[in-house]
Amino acid sequence: MSRQYLTIGLFGFGVVGKGLWDVLEQTPGLKASIKRICVKNPQKQRPLPSHHFTFDKDDLLNDPDINVIVELIDDSEAAFEIVSTAMRNGKGVVSANKKMIAEHLEELLALQSEFQVPFLYEAACCASIPIIRNLEEYYDNDLLVSLEGVVNGSTNYILTRCSTDRISFPEALKLAQEKGYAESNPALDVEGFDAKFKLTILLAHAFGIVEKPVNIYNLGIQRLGSLEQRYANEKGYKIKLMAIARKLDSNSVIALVMPKFISPTERFFMVDDVFNGVQTETSFSDKQFFMGKGAGAFPTASAVLSDISALSYSYRYEYKKMAQQSLSLTNNYLLEVFIGYKDTTDLELSDFETVSEKYVSQDGNYLVGKIRFDKLRNCSWAFNPNISILLTSAFSAEK
Amino acid sequence: MSRQYLTIGLFGFGVVGKGLWDVLEQTPGLKASIKRICVKNPQKQRPLPSHHFTFDKDDLLNDPDINVIVELIDDSEAAFEIVSTAMRNGKGVVSANKKMIAEHLEELLALQSEFQVPFLYEAACCASIPIIRNLEEYYDNDLLVSLEGVVNGSTNYILTRCSTDRISFPEALKLAQEKGYAESNPALDVEGFDAKFKLTILLAHAFGIVEKPVNIYNLGIQRLGSLEQRYANEKGYKIKLMAIARKLDSNSVIALVMPKFISPTERFFMVDDVFNGVQTETSFSDKQFFMGKGAGAFPTASAVLSDISALSYSYRYEYKKMAQQSLSLTNNYLLEVFIGYKDTTDLELSDFETVSEKYVSQDGNYLVGKIRFDKLRNCSWAFNPNISILLTSAFSAEK
Repeated sequence: MSRQYLTIGLFGFGVVGKGLWDVLEQTPGLKASIKRICVKNPQKQRPLPSHHFTFDKDDLLNDPDINVIVELIDDSEAAFEIVSTAMRNGKGVVSANKKMIAEHLEELLALQSEFQVPFLYEAACCASIPIIRNLEEYYDNDLLVSLEGVVNGSTNYILTRCSTDRISFPEALKLAQEKGYAESNPALDVEGFDAKFKLTILLAHAFGIVEKPVNIYNLGIQRLGSLEQRYANEKGYKIKLMAIARKLDSNSVIALVMPKFISPTERFFMVDDVFNGVQTETSFSDKQFFMGKGAGAFPTASAVLSDISALSYSYRYEYKKMAQQSLSLTNNYLLEVFIGYKDTTDLELSDFETVSEKYVSQDGNYLVGKIRFDKLRNCSWAFNPNISILLTSAFSAEK
Repeated sequence: MSRQYLTIGLFGFGVVGKGLWDVLEQTPGLKASIKRICVKNPQKQRPLPSHHFTFDKDDLLNDPDINVIVELIDDSEAAFEIVSTAMRNGKGVVSANKKMIAEHLEELLALQSEFQVPFLYEAACCASIPIIRNLEEYYDNDLLVSLEGVVNGSTNYILTRCSTDRISFPEALKLAQEKGYAESNPALDVEGFDAKFKLTILLAHAFGIVEKPVNIYNLGIQRLGSLEQRYANEKGYKIKLMAIARKLDSNSVIALVMPKFISPTERFFMVDDVFNGVQTETSFSDKQFFMGKGAGAFPTASAVLSDISALSYSYRYEYKKMAQQSLSLTNNYLLEVFIGYKDTTDLELSDFETVSEKYVSQDGNYLVGKIRFDKLRNCSWAFNPNISILLTSAFSAEK
């Protein structure tokens, strides 16, 4: 198979960008080199001579020598402008920007199709776990039933600290920030948006569903406290923030991001710290499990490198499921949930189909019950920051 | 992407073949159907009308309608004849026969190249774990440093029973046979040959190395007894049969199949029963872990199905590493091993570079020491069935 030499224009030179530079320098076998790097801040000291850098994005986007743009910047709107211009200019693109990709998926699909350019973004989902490529290539048929995962390393680090070191959520968050695992503004991670962006992307490759993130339900871990942790400890569970996509029937798929109690018999039980884990299930009732580091410079750079390498072989995503299946998201199903609350009057008990457990104490109360998802999603009490909502360990979705 | 309709000629109608038939019947989305099935025994009762079957392989191999042969028979030499004839006749082939593929790899590569036909065999390595596809597509560059795995479900089931239920090796083997996890002649599994066949195949896709199985070292689990199990229990280890391939430097790779003590901090610790697990490491020092069922009809059928689906998209292995790298196996390295023995005179202590631990008792003796691999491989005492040889949990290969 013939291999194309890649001349890369790189946007962003943080830890991932720097790692990428080093490996490409040391690995001629990759048949790729970075011609120039566009960065934002002219004042910042950098570890390479200044002629490698530019502050004008057009120096890269309009350079006919550059056939690939690697986009590793934070700002998702600026990233979209760079990526879409690059595609219009006929350049292949590699990106790790999940927010940008999730929010602009439809436009990015149209650009790929109109300009016939490859756009790869394995690093955007679960960093070093090659889940997109596996969904595209190995699960390239309609036999996939579900996809569930711990897909956000930073919340998983926080939850692991709460569970293992028995510290409070604010303490664990502070620790994560000190270690560089959480942003100074951690809302994207902690409130489940980052996980939702990844789920949005995975839905396209798993089930051919293109949905705006705003239409996908996400609950984060910010409402969890000592009540939930104690319940988990007593039962021998851990709490994980799960991204779940599951076929309900031949037309509809459920998709949500929610914290969930995980029992020791589940694979996710051992996905701790900044690790990510993804489990796929096919209609042969067989489960496969993938695990790797979900945050950090190296795992991300590793995924970016594999995309660069694949580009040199002219690989591109085919989005095969979109041609095969006609699935859409549904809100019409029944879920079992754990509800932690301070006061019964905060809740609307009649919203529940059944209540199987109820616990009342001075420190807090909880119930376990079944509720229709569309009710949960729309009822006002579920927005109350004093009420926690978690999937039970026996999670299943019924019609 | 255009999709070719596949008309399949199936060889073998055991549990995997039957499962495949059922799913293809139920899943029109796969764009494939089985036209006819070649089986061996005319006397056997089968769950389909007799017009589906033939006993003459040429009825499938010479049928111009049939564009894909799926080979699921036991006999590896008969399988090679079927597969090579099918390729000569211009048909794509899917096989799960690791022994056949490992022993005839060079010829099969030549046939693929001469007749330009795809030959896929994901089911031959770790059943449902898509490891070959990931090595081909995701690790499609020269950054892979190592690949290690529990790749044989039947020995892993036996070792799990020994460790968890504290039963003896013969008892555990009997249990495995009763459950259908081990053959009536279990030597291929128990002596590490099956794992070696898989390692042979993985070496080609991971490092571009094509080597005859006879040149790859394998030690099985048949010499393990109460001494080794007690040592493992005392240290909190488990014993797993590991297949290991690791770059030693830019020219050479070590490859071996040996039992190894696994500490609780290793991912393989939780790969129990018939599960397989594979860990890859890249030069970014990042590790990915894959886990899935390694034995049984469904996991194998699942992998066969994915290959069939990929064939319908004209997928074929590119064996990219062979064009990129020039690596070969080396025997010239130092290993740390645990040696269990009955009598000091059985051993040649001067063969060891260093001995760090020595234990003597009425029930048996052991030592832990470093030895050059070429010495271990050739010394006569290592062939003594009363001497066990395991990798220590601190496994590393030094020059």
